[in-house]
Amino acid sequence: MRKLKIAVVGSGAVGCYYGGMLARAGEDVHFLMRRDLEVVRTEGLRIRSGGEEHVLEALPTYASTSEIGACDLVIVAVKTTSNEVLEALLAPLMGEGARILNLQNGLGNEEFLAEYFGKERVMGGLCFVCLNRVDRGVIEHYGHGSISIGEAEGAPRGHTHEVVEAFRAAGIDARVVENLGTESWRKLVWNVPFNGLTIAAGGVTVADVLEDPGLRKVARELMVEIVETAKALGHDIPGDFIEGQFEKTAVMGPYKPSSLVDYLEGCAVEVESIWGEPLRAAQTIGVPTPRLEMLYVLLRQLTSTES
Amino acid sequence: MRKLKIAVVGSGAVGCYYGGMLARAGEDVHFLMRRDLEVVRTEGLRIRSGGEEHVLEALPTYASTSEIGACDLVIVAVKTTSNEVLEALLAPLMGEGARILNLQNGLGNEEFLAEYFGKERVMGGLCFVCLNRVDRGVIEHYGHGSISIGEAEGAPRGHTHEVVEAFRAAGIDARVVENLGTESWRKLVWNVPFNGLTIAAGGVTVADVLEDPGLRKVARELMVEIVETAKALGHDIPGDFIEGQFEKTAVMGPYKPSSLVDYLEGCAVEVESIWGEPLRAAQTIGVPTPRLEMLYVLLRQLTSTES
Repeated sequence: MRKLKIAVVGSGAVGCYYGGMLARAGEDVHFLMRRDLEVVRTEGLRIRSGGEEHVLEALPTYASTSEIGACDLVIVAVKTTSNEVLEALLAPLMGEGARILNLQNGLGNEEFLAEYFGKERVMGGLCFVCLNRVDRGVIEHYGHGSISIGEAEGAPRGHTHEVVEAFRAAGIDARVVENLGTESWRKLVWNVPFNGLTIAAGGVTVADVLEDPGLRKVARELMVEIVETAKALGHDIPGDFIEGQFEKTAVMGPYKPSSLVDYLEGCAVEVESIWGEPLRAAQTIGVPTPRLEMLYVLLRQLTSTES
Repeated sequence: MRKLKIAVVGSGAVGCYYGGMLARAGEDVHFLMRRDLEVVRTEGLRIRSGGEEHVLEALPTYASTSEIGACDLVIVAVKTTSNEVLEALLAPLMGEGARILNLQNGLGNEEFLAEYFGKERVMGGLCFVCLNRVDRGVIEHYGHGSISIGEAEGAPRGHTHEVVEAFRAAGIDARVVENLGTESWRKLVWNVPFNGLTIAAGGVTVADVLEDPGLRKVARELMVEIVETAKALGHDIPGDFIEGQFEKTAVMGPYKPSSLVDYLEGCAVEVESIWGEPLRAAQTIGVPTPRLEMLYVLLRQLTSTES
């Protein structure tokens, strides 16, 4: 298998974790960094997981994409609130045959990238992982870590399988998915309630949501709204899917979802891609989503006054 | 008309405003005070309204109800979060023939008092007034000021008319209502969305709710849930009632509802009487109120972490 030249654009928790895993496995990974550039250059990238700390030293890190140049694979992990800069940011990386693997949260991101670079060049990866960037250059991995990769449109082709193989070779639980849209909606079933309610309830953890019977009930009802919308759009969601989300969350402990961390740190929260896009999709096809709408409206206000 | 000996129990904004108006008009009003006792004794009670400041000096103020003794009329204006102390607090005031006028927010309060003192002795007053206690002993009156008084159960009798006359003689826009329950539900149509969303949206004013199209829509939908519940319980709500609430609110400017002020000051918020009781009533009769439920659950969490 040929070695891919990989760029990681957006080196928050997700970009650093998956990019770091690939680099550790010997892949040729180049990191675009901003906040953490100096720290990672001098002290390395630190990934803490299961009580161990892995220090990745001498990583190729850059302050601009033109320094990185043309790549085979461009992993996009910037916040969706910065999407307007992506066209200019990615252009220097898009060598002939280059593909994009988008790891952003929520809906609409692959479509957005496909507009500029062509849908045949865009893949999406749904990350099921509990991560926080706890300090400059320090990523804490709390659990999970799988990634589901599919094409922006249509069934997976050869290069998608190739990327999944590279992830697997790096020890990541990766799989190819037939329908990326379905996986995106499945992921929203978790993200909409837990990323949202932990903020709207004043900065609580996922464990607090599970422990409060009222919040837990609202979380479940938000999931039902997302599942109903996804089904109406033709996506297949298994009957026990919601129950599985609660089981998965129960083992997370007092985890703070990424949006809550952003909120608490005064950073931009991905309100439109996680709550706005699903809400507009539901409204377009006429599925009632009163709780999603209320959560979206509150989060928009909460994050606008925080920023 | 005979002069009534009146006690005001709970001298926050509402108690001080209406009690102060009655005292100014020459009624024999006795104030139970806690936080503001010393300031009012030395500097008087200050009521600011329409650019003027009315200073009420030498008011009879007390630290305990036993000092006040038996009264004809006991105005209850403590927060509903202190209801558990009311039986003991009111006992010394309840002379023969004494009546209670409850001015508390939300549902369930007259019923609560009726359990101890008998429903024939309990009236309720719905205050439609924009007030804030802005400093110790200082009440700011922003607008409105009417009060609707009815009996805890049944049609108004002679003593209710007598109390309304006393309020009117003090320059207060008071009226007798046939059905206190209906008036309570009508008041909730405003209190549920505006007291609630201003907190849940992170501490915004009623003007912010009106100006944000999303919050405004959710406010309207919350009103519909309350109206539907009230109607299902047999209360009459006029067809243009919701529209009237928006018109009334539009002239309030950047007003902070009393619950928001409580929240911002770290005081107890009346979550159960304003949101919990209506929600339980709706659930009992099977009216869907998804937004009310979500707001209640969020407010309970927000106020528990604040206190």
